[in-house]
Amino acid sequence: MALGKDYAAQDCALARALEVLGERWTLLIVRDVFYGVRRYSDFLAHLDIPRAVLAARLQALVEAGVLDKVRYSDTPPRDEYVITEMGRELWPALHTLSAWGGRHLSANGSRRVFAHAACGTLVGPNGICPSCAVEVPVTDLDVLPGVYSPRRDDPVSRAMRLPHRMLTPLTCEH
Amino acid sequence: MALGKDYAAQDCALARALEVLGERWTLLIVRDVFYGVRRYSDFLAHLDIPRAVLAARLQALVEAGVLDKVRYSDTPPRDEYVITEMGRELWPALHTLSAWGGRHLSANGSRRVFAHAACGTLVGPNGICPSCAVEVPVTDLDVLPGVYSPRRDDPVSRAMRLPHRMLTPLTCEH
Repeated sequence: MALGKDYAAQDCALARALEVLGERWTLLIVRDVFYGVRRYSDFLAHLDIPRAVLAARLQALVEAGVLDKVRYSDTPPRDEYVITEMGRELWPALHTLSAWGGRHLSANGSRRVFAHAACGTLVGPNGICPSCAVEVPVTDLDVLPGVYSPRRDDPVSRAMRLPHRMLTPLTCEH
Repeated sequence: MALGKDYAAQDCALARALEVLGERWTLLIVRDVFYGVRRYSDFLAHLDIPRAVLAARLQALVEAGVLDKVRYSDTPPRDEYVITEMGRELWPALHTLSAWGGRHLSANGSRRVFAHAACGTLVGPNGICPSCAVEVPVTDLDVLPGVYSPRRDDPVSRAMRLPHRMLTPLTCEH
């Protein structure tokens, strides 16, 4: 028996999801992708994650089909990581888990809030726009600063502080 | 710097949630609690988890306020783990993450489905009952076998196979 090294004997859709997403840092990488981070150096600046761990997690997310690796420069060779349709469907889970953390574990509530771009109304933790009564696709959400100031001051955090459409590539001044 | 040992520098509601829930096995323990598992021996039978890891994860969930430890027998001393209101609010995140796993990572789809007890209609991955157009609280959901047979055959798996109301204590014949 694998003695808890993996969830192979757990014949369960949630266990399958955690095999892809349950490694430390993985969901924070996916969160950053939703906020518009695409480049290795930007993940590195924002996440305080060891380089080898970041590279391994990105590679695993590509192999699992959550991210695509896309070459954007040949000289020097540079890739960016773009979310797939399968990855995009993770948004409701990330959003509701983050809302739970904001409600119960952050003294100051959530640092970011999400507005339905079509009407400007903040969506609830269930991802539904109270004005339009629709579940808002992540591509129709603007991310805005929440109720308190972030304490981080890396280039990616500064770029994220500006209101912007979700999944729009961030421009980060390093 | 903690070099990725924790998420302390990640000033983010999702990072806070993952500090509580991101350890291997933790979300599968919480899933079992929603299905009605409350006792140490039942988690052990169902999860193939090392005893020390199970004890540590249950203790961490109690300390975080997700579970309450309730004495149900004095001789011998025995406790069961009951979800708190804060823990109950995790259901939408678990459900949507599990639905994602079923859609993308399980060849046969989800092993269990959830019906709005009031009308019998299966709820969608967003937790909404298509007939009643309401977000169904987890206490109003019945869990039913999904499209394929589970391969596990421990006492807890057998008890879970019977349709039952979520969060109702399972009776497991060991």
